[in-house]
Amino acid sequence: MTDLFASLDSTLDQVWQRLGRGVADRRAPARHPVLATVGADGAEARVVVLRAADREAGTLTIHTDSASGKVAQLRETSGATLLVWDEKAKLQIRLRANVDIIAGDTDAFARLPDAAQMNYGGTPAPGTPISEPGAHDPAPDARRFTVLLAHVREIETLHLGTPHRRARFRDGAATWLAP
Amino acid sequence: MTDLFASLDSTLDQVWQRLGRGVADRRAPARHPVLATVGADGAEARVVVLRAADREAGTLTIHTDSASGKVAQLRETSGATLLVWDEKAKLQIRLRANVDIIAGDTDAFARLPDAAQMNYGGTPAPGTPISEPGAHDPAPDARRFTVLLAHVREIETLHLGTPHRRARFRDGAATWLAP
Repeated sequence: MTDLFASLDSTLDQVWQRLGRGVADRRAPARHPVLATVGADGAEARVVVLRAADREAGTLTIHTDSASGKVAQLRETSGATLLVWDEKAKLQIRLRANVDIIAGDTDAFARLPDAAQMNYGGTPAPGTPISEPGAHDPAPDARRFTVLLAHVREIETLHLGTPHRRARFRDGAATWLAP
Repeated sequence: MTDLFASLDSTLDQVWQRLGRGVADRRAPARHPVLATVGADGAEARVVVLRAADREAGTLTIHTDSASGKVAQLRETSGATLLVWDEKAKLQIRLRANVDIIAGDTDAFARLPDAAQMNYGGTPAPGTPISEPGAHDPAPDARRFTVLLAHVREIETLHLGTPHRRARFRDGAATWLAP
């Protein structure tokens, strides 16, 4: 079997291939990265859904609700990490990015299936205390649909093979790192 | 089947049961939480291994190398999140914590198996550029073995059932949240 992580070039190819698979395939590990952001009391993290990955542009796309905590946090500090752990490949992918917040793309919202529209909007806002799980109105609101466009500035991989291989990709340059 | 996430009490029980399982079972989802920290350029994240979970004390334990980036980041900002995504249970657990850095526990280091000792130490330090994957000396160093003791101040869960249920546990109080 070819060792997909033997060279830096091949490792970077694997990263973008796996991100592409995450966009296309609900079951791929890169479908659900963890998004880490800076909050008022330290770092915050949650699972998100990867909607697009563009190697040429170096961007990743996530959809969210403008009233969510992550949007407030990214307004304060745009520097974030998207993390993918691919258990089968024993590959960790850390994507350091600056995230743009793009509101008001009502055309994109209109193209979403009804069930997906339900993820944006709702009263009270996400994270507000309520008396019981059903005590909220899920009515969607196109104005709350928000695109997070992550501009990747650095990729770091760790492949737990023999040997362990850690690598960094930044500004067109690549290097191995001590694991 | 009993709905394990129907009440706040039962949800919190599930959290600590699953954390305990992560400590005991290499294949449990809570074995490998993501640790998010605040770095110089924004949030950082990586997968870690959960070594202990103490419900009474409200603490989680991780082992690391004192020369790792996360130790430097936690020295600056102790506020961090540990995130567990349990795919099968459709349960996300966010543990907001302040992390103490405990160095020099050479007794604990001495009790580790040889293979585990190799994770602490090594020259050059983790994350240093090297010419090829093997170009580093992995010799362990007891003085670099470091315990991260995370004091959990808030737990937030999201169960993707019908309905979605989001809950928060803090200072002995529990509440449902709008999802």
